Amino acid sequence: MVAIIMGSKSDWAVMEQAAEVLKKLEVAHTVRIISAHRTPDLMRSFAQHARQEGIHVIIAGAGGAAHLPGMVASYTTLPVIGVPVKSSNSIDGWDSVLSILQMPNGVPVATVALNGAKNAGILAAQIISLQDAPLAQKLEAYKQQMELEVLESQKELKP
Amino acid sequence: MVAIIMGSKSDWAVMEQAAEVLKKLEVAHTVRIISAHRTPDLMRSFAQHARQEGIHVIIAGAGGAAHLPGMVASYTTLPVIGVPVKSSNSIDGWDSVLSILQMPNGVPVATVALNGAKNAGILAAQIISLQDAPLAQKLEAYKQQMELEVLESQKELKP
Amino acid sequence: MVAIIMGSKSDWAVMEQAAEVLKKLEVAHTVRIISAHRTPDLMRSFAQHARQEGIHVIIAGAGGAAHLPGMVASYTTLPVIGVPVKSSNSIDGWDSVLSILQMPNGVPVATVALNGAKNAGILAAQIISLQDAPLAQKLEAYKQQMELEVLESQKELKP
Amino acid sequence: MVAIIMGSKSDWAVMEQAAEVLKKLEVAHTVRIISAHRTPDLMRSFAQHARQEGIHVIIAGAGGAAHLPGMVASYTTLPVIGVPVKSSNSIDGWDSVLSILQMPNGVPVATVALNGAKNAGILAAQIISLQDAPLAQKLEAYKQQMELEVLESQKELKP
Amino acid sequence: MVAIIMGSKSDWAVMEQAAEVLKKLEVAHTVRIISAHRTPDLMRSFAQHARQEGIHVIIAGAGGAAHLPGMVASYTTLPVIGVPVKSSNSIDGWDSVLSILQMPNGVPVATVALNGAKNAGILAAQIISLQDAPLAQKLEAYKQQMELEVLESQKELKP
Amino acid sequence: MVAIIMGSKSDWAVMEQAAEVLKKLEVAHTVRIISAHRTPDLMRSFAQHARQEGIHVIIAGAGGAAHLPGMVASYTTLPVIGVPVKSSNSIDGWDSVLSILQMPNGVPVATVALNGAKNAGILAAQIISLQDAPLAQKLEAYKQQMELEVLESQKELKP
Amino acid sequence: MVAIIMGSKSDWAVMEQAAEVLKKLEVAHTVRIISAHRTPDLMRSFAQHARQEGIHVIIAGAGGAAHLPGMVASYTTLPVIGVPVKSSNSIDGWDSVLSILQMPNGVPVATVALNGAKNAGILAAQIISLQDAPLAQKLEAYKQQMELEVLESQKELKP
Amino acid sequence: MVAIIMGSKSDWAVMEQAAEVLKKLEVAHTVRIISAHRTPDLMRSFAQHARQEGIHVIIAGAGGAAHLPGMVASYTTLPVIGVPVKSSNSIDGWDSVLSILQMPNGVPVATVALNGAKNAGILAAQIISLQDAPLAQKLEAYKQQMELEVLESQKELKP
Repeated sequence: MVAIIMGSKSDWAVMEQAAEVLKKLEVAHTVRIISAHRTPDLMRSFAQHARQEGIHVIIAGAGGAAHLPGMVASYTTLPVIGVPVKSSNSIDGWDSVLSILQMPNGVPVATVALNGAKNAGILAAQIISLQDAPLAQKLEAYKQQMELEVLESQKELKP
Repeated sequence: MVAIIMGSKSDWAVMEQAAEVLKKLEVAHTVRIISAHRTPDLMRSFAQHARQEGIHVIIAGAGGAAHLPGMVASYTTLPVIGVPVKSSNSIDGWDSVLSILQMPNGVPVATVALNGAKNAGILAAQIISLQDAPLAQKLEAYKQQMELEVLESQKELKP
Repeated sequence: MVAIIMGSKSDWAVMEQAAEVLKKLEVAHTVRIISAHRTPDLMRSFAQHARQEGIHVIIAGAGGAAHLPGMVASYTTLPVIGVPVKSSNSIDGWDSVLSILQMPNGVPVATVALNGAKNAGILAAQIISLQDAPLAQKLEAYKQQMELEVLESQKELKP
Repeated sequence: MVAIIMGSKSDWAVMEQAAEVLKKLEVAHTVRIISAHRTPDLMRSFAQHARQEGIHVIIAGAGGAAHLPGMVASYTTLPVIGVPVKSSNSIDGWDSVLSILQMPNGVPVATVALNGAKNAGILAAQIISLQDAPLAQKLEAYKQQMELEVLESQKELKP
Repeated sequence: MVAIIMGSKSDWAVMEQAAEVLKKLEVAHTVRIISAHRTPDLMRSFAQHARQEGIHVIIAGAGGAAHLPGMVASYTTLPVIGVPVKSSNSIDGWDSVLSILQMPNGVPVATVALNGAKNAGILAAQIISLQDAPLAQKLEAYKQQMELEVLESQKELKP
Repeated sequence: MVAIIMGSKSDWAVMEQAAEVLKKLEVAHTVRIISAHRTPDLMRSFAQHARQEGIHVIIAGAGGAAHLPGMVASYTTLPVIGVPVKSSNSIDGWDSVLSILQMPNGVPVATVALNGAKNAGILAAQIISLQDAPLAQKLEAYKQQMELEVLESQKELKP
Repeated sequence: MVAIIMGSKSDWAVMEQAAEVLKKLEVAHTVRIISAHRTPDLMRSFAQHARQEGIHVIIAGAGGAAHLPGMVASYTTLPVIGVPVKSSNSIDGWDSVLSILQMPNGVPVATVALNGAKNAGILAAQIISLQDAPLAQKLEAYKQQMELEVLESQKELKP
Repeated sequence: MVAIIMGSKSDWAVMEQAAEVLKKLEVAHTVRIISAHRTPDLMRSFAQHARQEGIHVIIAGAGGAAHLPGMVASYTTLPVIGVPVKSSNSIDGWDSVLSILQMPNGVPVATVALNGAKNAGILAAQIISLQDAPLAQKLEAYKQQMELEVLESQKELKP
């Protein structure tokens, strides 16, 4: 089970791509709005109980001074994937990226690209695939499908 | 009462300057090591009870993905001053600065310059001086002293 | 009493949010256009007399080489909150942020996020709340309201 | 089994910390020098066979135009953790960070902080702990130990 | 013969300018979609056989964590020209630029400006002109034409 | 007459180079320590009277949130040359550069390179040379001397 | 006499503001399109003869790898003002700013803000005003007019 | 024949690596100190006559506002390789990189990594190898040697 959390409804436009790729790969997931700064107690209780509630991986998206992924990671030993979201008053996304990436020793966050929610979903699936052979096969097929699409796209190019 | 908190003992070299200027201005203060990522529950309980324990201003220093000032601010309505500390694996200090400065609407952190703990101390004193007339006078005297020192330094210059 | 000042009428689109949140929190405030570079004498006389005129906190917004917050701080011992405004020819806002944040020792400016005027208003209210218990309660209620809104927003999410 | 790979012997000073924390957590691991640019065929064959050779997670460290983590990820569906190494001619580490982090959709790399090899090791252990309950307990204990050390450090502080 | 390759059809809008200037200079060229991350084996076989297939220069365009130019260079001793493409989720183009430019010693990539595909085409022609005197003359004529156009543009300016 | 001013004695190590080149070119100059933030009234009175006191050009050096050049420019219509000084807690010099360079319309500062005090001196001399033919000749000779030194240096190179 | 030069007709949208303010201040000026990279000989001959042709100040605008201001400065001892223009493929203007600002010792360029052509015009007028008392008075009047406009704008603000 | 040029003797420490690798690959080369800003006429005459003097590739190294590679390219149709040198007052090398890389359409410079003179040498050899089969073989051997060294280095690693 993958939990996708985000600080605000406005992050959904980006984070939706994580849900979509997990749906495509048939990985169970749940979606929650949890704000590090506005609902710190909800965040804490969510993170503290995530493992026993059967969650395997947490995908957390946030923008600006993005504290959600790192703070969730401080409350759990589950792998936490951080998605830097380029929010409206962001300084070109640098704030989100650095607030999520530069975690101190002891509390890792697996950071993906700016707005890279799709890759967060795939990474979560890769992690779960270690104990789910059919999922590993789906990921392999997904990879081959991508390769095929690039090869096909050559035809559409009219140089 | 001003609380000076920091994520690690190694931040003390910078944060000490806040304590020193508060001592000089005779403002009561306390110093605590509190890590957002390694002692999140201590941080939460500290921040939740700070106001009723007579603390007026919280100065929080942190480096890298610096979540301490912002997370403390999420648990209290006291003014929180954030000091970005340039830690060893920092990307030139940008990570600390942006993680502290770029807080979302609703949860402000009063950010000072990189390693600017001295100014954090003065800012805390300025805030307290609003209800402490003698402190306001000390701050005025401090300002005049700075002016005098610049004027004096002219003599030492041998162009 | 909070004074909101800005270098140009065009900054009002951003700075208005400080006034709005102060109105909502019923904190008395005044708004002035004062330019560090075009009306330096007005700025000086404003800053020098601010304390005796009953002002407790100054919120100063400016863009580009943003000198207004820092120069006002050089003339007063009141707390000064700086709002970096992302103006039209700004280099992605970095100029405003760094010109306001990186003040030298002795003259602090409490810097908030790029275009973070709303947080400047809340921070000013937090400072004043230290001597105004009802305002402290309003801030507490504001915080709870924010929490409630996040909790509510979960319902609107259709993953 | 965790594979730690790096482009050059000189990266070992940083990458060693991944091996150390895995040793401490008693997680089996292997260390290889594999360069994306100088041994591309070794990299390819390593990545293509990693899963069937019993590797669960790959930690890849590289500096400058750091292509190793991303290229390994292009050849495998295992989770790949990227460690940006601040090498000698690096532009302050930005090149390593961005070359590893900003992967296109479809091929994720779990990026940790600049020189954050220790966190890469912990993240790898977190991933493996999903199917290894004793390791999950060791990670929990590690977290509690970190908390204890912060609490202890308070005593050593002489403000 | 110049080979123009790019990671995705969407790069064609930029890379087309390389093809156009080569057409104008009557330099033979071919265009291929080859992705480092999605078709790594195609990339490898393309790069390994490029020299014997009569290709003299490879122009490779890519965005984000742009590994295509550098990886192609790792498989061939032909000159490789890299074009950083500013893709949609790019961090202002810095990721593309640094991923292509900051190659380690031993494996050079000739990097041109962000979206500078036209210059990549001209550079390829300059390289081929070393063994093609008529092409050298065309390049000289092209340079003179540019000079003329600047001189002409003076007339259109109505100050 | 050129006035060289700086915010602190510690800037002299850099600003000295302006004085030296002016001495070499026999241009009258004076040196003052004037801080925008600590001696704002001295700065104001200096700038307001500079023209009638026979000063032609003002060179102002400052670091961090460097307000001195811009604020002096707000009080005078003399040409003001700004020297960004890379001070100790500077964020790689970006703060000084942007605080001086990005002046709003109406109040220019002629900015030179980071720590470029020597060029500030030469630029001041170039400005004065417009009404001082012998100085123009000295500048021409200085230019030829530089050219000669480069030509000479070829001999010392042992490739 | 002020010469306004720029590398391409497309820079005129920005550089026009220099011409406008000079017209307003009644300072004689001429406008030329001169490209460092496409008309290097025109640039050289222009710069070498500028002083004897009665030009006092050269304003040079350019974008990207902006070599025009610095190269003109290498051929003349007249003061050269550089205007970094934010061109279409610019990396947020940083390339123009740094290519113009960071001149080596011996060859200064007086750099103004990104797209700051208006300030370039005012700076040129300030330089000429040293030998033109009526112009100095116009600049003083211009300054007072700016001050007045700020004071007036207060009325239009409806907080 | 490869010409290695640089703006100042102090660049030799970096540029020497280009000469060394060319010597190793037995490619004829010459070394000259030519400054864009201090010896513009030497630069012009060098660049204008380079092709007829039998030069095939020009490697130009420069720091700060690095105009040498781009200006040489404006005078010749030979391929020009630019080496950004991290000089003493450089802003972390960004100035050199951007001044060389971001050339306008029509005048390409083949840019290599910061201080990447060795790769400039290899790239020059790759270009010349198109008409020099034995050199192509030496480059192939060089590549294999690099591969071997990485494979060997595995033995020296004691994890």
